[in-house]
Amino acid sequence: MRIGELSKIARRRRLDRVLITDPADVRAFTGLNCDSAVVSAGRGEGDVVFYTDFRYAPMVRREAPRLKCLDTARLSLKGRRIGYVASMSHSRYLALHRLAPRAVFVDVARDVAAARAVKTPEEIAGLRAAERLNCEIWAEARAAFRSGMTERDMARVIRRLMIDRGDGEAFDTIVCVGANAAECHHEPDGTVWNGREPVLVDMGVKLGGFCSDMTRNVVPPRQRPLYRGVYKLVLEANLAAIDAARPGVTGRALDKAARDVIAKGGFGRCFGHSLGHGVGYEVHEAPYASKRSADVLKPGMLVTIEPGVYLEGNLGVRIEDLVLITADGCEVLSFSEK
Amino acid sequence: MRIGELSKIARRRRLDRVLITDPADVRAFTGLNCDSAVVSAGRGEGDVVFYTDFRYAPMVRREAPRLKCLDTARLSLKGRRIGYVASMSHSRYLALHRLAPRAVFVDVARDVAAARAVKTPEEIAGLRAAERLNCEIWAEARAAFRSGMTERDMARVIRRLMIDRGDGEAFDTIVCVGANAAECHHEPDGTVWNGREPVLVDMGVKLGGFCSDMTRNVVPPRQRPLYRGVYKLVLEANLAAIDAARPGVTGRALDKAARDVIAKGGFGRCFGHSLGHGVGYEVHEAPYASKRSADVLKPGMLVTIEPGVYLEGNLGVRIEDLVLITADGCEVLSFSEK
Repeated sequence: MRIGELSKIARRRRLDRVLITDPADVRAFTGLNCDSAVVSAGRGEGDVVFYTDFRYAPMVRREAPRLKCLDTARLSLKGRRIGYVASMSHSRYLALHRLAPRAVFVDVARDVAAARAVKTPEEIAGLRAAERLNCEIWAEARAAFRSGMTERDMARVIRRLMIDRGDGEAFDTIVCVGANAAECHHEPDGTVWNGREPVLVDMGVKLGGFCSDMTRNVVPPRQRPLYRGVYKLVLEANLAAIDAARPGVTGRALDKAARDVIAKGGFGRCFGHSLGHGVGYEVHEAPYASKRSADVLKPGMLVTIEPGVYLEGNLGVRIEDLVLITADGCEVLSFSEK
Repeated sequence: MRIGELSKIARRRRLDRVLITDPADVRAFTGLNCDSAVVSAGRGEGDVVFYTDFRYAPMVRREAPRLKCLDTARLSLKGRRIGYVASMSHSRYLALHRLAPRAVFVDVARDVAAARAVKTPEEIAGLRAAERLNCEIWAEARAAFRSGMTERDMARVIRRLMIDRGDGEAFDTIVCVGANAAECHHEPDGTVWNGREPVLVDMGVKLGGFCSDMTRNVVPPRQRPLYRGVYKLVLEANLAAIDAARPGVTGRALDKAARDVIAKGGFGRCFGHSLGHGVGYEVHEAPYASKRSADVLKPGMLVTIEPGVYLEGNLGVRIEDLVLITADGCEVLSFSEK
């Protein structure tokens, strides 16, 4: 709940109104879970209107009795400078633009994302609980894996636990047997695990509206030297970035801390994605740790640290932790063995 | 798989290229499951380029070896008239527009949706199987409901079955005990079922990429006359629309067939949403059956028929079937008792 931040953005960017429509933004700023809303904030303290339709209005009035709630049909836009989030659909943008044809629309996506990136104590507690549950589910699922299971079977074990103990998946669980792990976005299929190949699992349970995210690898004994070497290198990169994570560090610098290790190990070209992303009401949000990210880490931010090395048709290793940026460094929320 | 349709749209609308980016559109036109793609089609037969990144390229080359697949970084836009789907994000629209600053961008959302709305025989088989499974899961779940269970408990029973027998939920399962059903988008909460109140369940299992959708109500004996009357009226409206569903009928006329029954019964103001929507790779797609929809029903289209009556703080009834438009009428795919 950071509704006041919208008016701050309006004042800072000299805007007459700031609009948010994305459900995750709406949830993060108002605390309300609504798939069809336009939240309009002016510069003044408490100048906020929540526009939605009859399907959600009763819930909004019940949960936020003090919030001004009007039907979307009554949406009007006064002012010359309107802040909006450019990730909204182009058709929605056109519709809003028609309400204020002469206004200048200013993209405040970065301001909105930045306000969301620093979590409130309640959000940190919720995210901590979600990642803890994610680790517990991983331990239980891993113990239930048997040779002869398919990737789909193993994913099902995890998804069942996520429903029994949490609110289901934050994203489609990824289970990759052997060389399938070379595809970062491999979908669990009928590939059977022979009990000797490594298995990469990328999973996140949802709990109380909060997402979690972690990647671990089942590594049976007697792996090829190539796999063992890659695993050791990826783990080294993961630890190097954890070591570098602290307030004031940019997403770019954090990404580099891990990327340099992998490059030095000779696998620079096999780490094709960025190092990490924030996690909150959405599984991918600010801050971003990538080659180009200027995001600056602050206490209260969460970010994943997930370096990987992928050799097509051969192997894939990714080790992902979710960390919380603290006053003087970071706390690793993913306690599962790696 | 209807990739040729894109070039047809380009020719019909006199466009140099037609672009699709939405994952469900990409899946419907190419058969490929890719979260990060731009598919660009010209007027010529087979003039199609699939742009994606390294994460998906191996899968695309494996699944569609004949399709030209390039890295998104190489995306270029030649031509003066470009077709696009305005539901894409505004930021993406701006990025595409920068690639062809002088081109005219034409929204082909309706053409793309219309091409998707008429299902292929394979899609019909997949959707039929998904709805059949949905009905089987409903029967099993309903038999497991016990007084003393909360809405969350009942939703969990359904979600577990969806994972064990299918690919999980097509949308968040809705379970409403008693008056909670007056909120169409009520989230399952801690409300306990005493075994005597009605329970509204709106559910859809995903199977092989296809969605399903059905709403049923558990109605224990000895309900108040008001509830019984409303239930009878909603069922009458549901049957009237099923009776009216055939090729050539507009979404507007289909909606009216049900709405008139409810209005005549005196509850016209309590049926606030539209009658139905298409179902396919997405749980909401064309055709739409609403007060304003000009969509014309054709054989091979699927549409839900889900009239409802909602009295805030009192009761809610919705009865939803998924029907397939046939040559001379429709086939109800939801066989669960209502």
